[in-house]
Amino acid sequence: MASPVTPPRGMRDFLPAEKARREHVLTVIRDAYRRHGFDEIETPVMEDSARLHSGLGGDNEKLAFGVLKRGLGKDDLRAADEPIDLTDLGLRFDLTVPLARFYASHRAELPNVVRTIQIGPVWRAERPQRGRYRQFVQCDIDILGEAGPLAELELLAATSDALQALGLGDAWIRVNDRRILTALVAFWGVPPESAESALVTFDKLDKIGEDGVVAELGAKGLGDAAVIAETLELVRDLPDDGWSLLEDPPVWIEQSAADQLRALRDGLPGVSLVFSPNLVRGMGYYTGTVFEIAHPSVPYSLGGGGRYDGMIGRFLGSDVPAAGSSLGFERIVDLVDLPAGVTDAIALVHDGVAPERLAALKRELVADGSRVVLVRRAKKTGAQLEQLAADGITRFAFVGPDAITAADLDLRPLAS
Amino acid sequence: MASPVTPPRGMRDFLPAEKARREHVLTVIRDAYRRHGFDEIETPVMEDSARLHSGLGGDNEKLAFGVLKRGLGKDDLRAADEPIDLTDLGLRFDLTVPLARFYASHRAELPNVVRTIQIGPVWRAERPQRGRYRQFVQCDIDILGEAGPLAELELLAATSDALQALGLGDAWIRVNDRRILTALVAFWGVPPESAESALVTFDKLDKIGEDGVVAELGAKGLGDAAVIAETLELVRDLPDDGWSLLEDPPVWIEQSAADQLRALRDGLPGVSLVFSPNLVRGMGYYTGTVFEIAHPSVPYSLGGGGRYDGMIGRFLGSDVPAAGSSLGFERIVDLVDLPAGVTDAIALVHDGVAPERLAALKRELVADGSRVVLVRRAKKTGAQLEQLAADGITRFAFVGPDAITAADLDLRPLAS
Repeated sequence: MASPVTPPRGMRDFLPAEKARREHVLTVIRDAYRRHGFDEIETPVMEDSARLHSGLGGDNEKLAFGVLKRGLGKDDLRAADEPIDLTDLGLRFDLTVPLARFYASHRAELPNVVRTIQIGPVWRAERPQRGRYRQFVQCDIDILGEAGPLAELELLAATSDALQALGLGDAWIRVNDRRILTALVAFWGVPPESAESALVTFDKLDKIGEDGVVAELGAKGLGDAAVIAETLELVRDLPDDGWSLLEDPPVWIEQSAADQLRALRDGLPGVSLVFSPNLVRGMGYYTGTVFEIAHPSVPYSLGGGGRYDGMIGRFLGSDVPAAGSSLGFERIVDLVDLPAGVTDAIALVHDGVAPERLAALKRELVADGSRVVLVRRAKKTGAQLEQLAADGITRFAFVGPDAITAADLDLRPLAS
Repeated sequence: MASPVTPPRGMRDFLPAEKARREHVLTVIRDAYRRHGFDEIETPVMEDSARLHSGLGGDNEKLAFGVLKRGLGKDDLRAADEPIDLTDLGLRFDLTVPLARFYASHRAELPNVVRTIQIGPVWRAERPQRGRYRQFVQCDIDILGEAGPLAELELLAATSDALQALGLGDAWIRVNDRRILTALVAFWGVPPESAESALVTFDKLDKIGEDGVVAELGAKGLGDAAVIAETLELVRDLPDDGWSLLEDPPVWIEQSAADQLRALRDGLPGVSLVFSPNLVRGMGYYTGTVFEIAHPSVPYSLGGGGRYDGMIGRFLGSDVPAAGSSLGFERIVDLVDLPAGVTDAIALVHDGVAPERLAALKRELVADGSRVVLVRRAKKTGAQLEQLAADGITRFAFVGPDAITAADLDLRPLAS
């Protein structure tokens, strides 16, 4: 085949070193979340098209990959008198729509308060670009059935511990509350039906600045420019951790939301929480607390989440309080190194040894608890040993044709 | 929504207990394979349709789910003058076609001998039935680039150790060689172009018996009935481990294959290898050793594999020796119990405690290394504690409204 053989557009293969790093990061996250009382669940990668396109997924619904109906050939289509549906299933574009479906399917088997871990790939037919992939892993925890701030406290504590365990302890978490945002845009004079549109603009504050926000809202015909400018000035002048704004809050701060944010801060000593009144979070389904993870080494967020009380019960037909936290796995994995030399890994560098002999030696060493890799001796032994060290091998021995047991091997350490 | 909310047809949700068991089994398998020098890789779940349907997948190709071309609407189809392709991608139906594509994509970055672990879901649009799913996990190891029996020795040793580690040490492995099968059907008088068809019939020996095989081959007009009956009698009368047939082999036993099988047996002391001259393995791509895992508790195989030298190089345009072993994960997971009480898991059964207080208590215990689950105290405490024990909780404490630190908790063991 002359054409280059590559994975499908926007999708990636993972070679051993990268795959090991990814699995390491997932193991650390999974362990942290499990210790915090969350339990992993799994749903199929496909959902019924009708559920994927029920409006819960926002703009991501448009990016869903559809799965062709089984048995449908192109001739069937041309023979049909009416246009027919080509798909009945689609690949999930997030883990939240499947969670809502899962909850509706299994409500009776689940406890009153459910704490879930979901780790798995999702697919979006985005225009491929640097850092954006058509298949990528999401890593979510959610608490369903808990209406009070205990849910946020547990989510933020677990998220913070997971980051710590990954060596990302210098991350901080920006928090806000949708109710504060709603009250703010009302204070600007924006009518409720335009609140989302105004928030889309406000969300760009860090990018386009105060003048940009005022101008864009003006162009949209939303709010009073002078009032907007005044509040933006307050936001701009906030010291680093933002909490001072809540000490002597301006009139547009929604009081109960502010009280709850302060309670979160007081209930999570040691967790770097920052109050960010201009944190919006894109998805319109959030109803209360929202948060986002920031890290000094990157300009983008490493994840986030919040409360979304209206959504999980949609397939069930009744409201279920819910809050969740999602780690940006693909971004995090780039920041985390695989700890080196954790396992004892032995390379048997062999030359002219009978296969049965070599297999027996290997089994002896594996039985003793080592990882063992067989490598045919190369001409350039120095370069070969360097490569083995780079591959995580910690010890090696040359094995020749003489009959020999594992005890006779001259095992030497390999510095990486 | 009035209709029952279920996962797509033939696909499953996994609740916490089942998911934990699945992850446990995967961890044990992965660890065993890693110790044997195999490295995990990952490919996207989709491949180009042309590659999925290149003939490497046998009958499974027909079961592939197709992915609808992005941007294709039903109106486009009716407007088109010519029938147009509806799919350009499909979901993988096994992990071997993706491995061949992966090898072709990354040949230059890989060592001469590659030992891969692939663990992941595959999809087949089969008619759903007991034990058959449309999404299921495959668990493969493969060695690419090793032409000699060292590959089989390593694969069988790793597979045997994985079974042992799973508590399935009473499994045994049936082995045969495609070259023995080819020579056998030639001995029957079957022409080479009908060999696969004759093997399909021979494969049914355990189901339809000797008379059935003779009759079906007769109906196909293949081979000499008397010769066939005579060889089948030899196969029938074999003692349990089958090796006696190779001590004084009949003329139809292909000698070099028999020698190699004996070398495998001698090179794997402690591994229960059985010579099964009627083991065929369905896939036509096998070229040498074939094997299948049997277990006393189930009538079906728990996995298998073999050598398939012609296949991996197909996308590369040159031959690459290859052999692999696949565990039937969905069958194995039903036979393995999750070890109980490995982690210390504490339930804080709370009633009237302030959220911040509860969150702080939990974090203290988590920091000490425990898994901690918060549970609101139920009216029927006895039933609640029983449920907690069933969920894997090992200790519990009642927590009331009094301010209290973790040290003051009255933690009691919970017997499961």
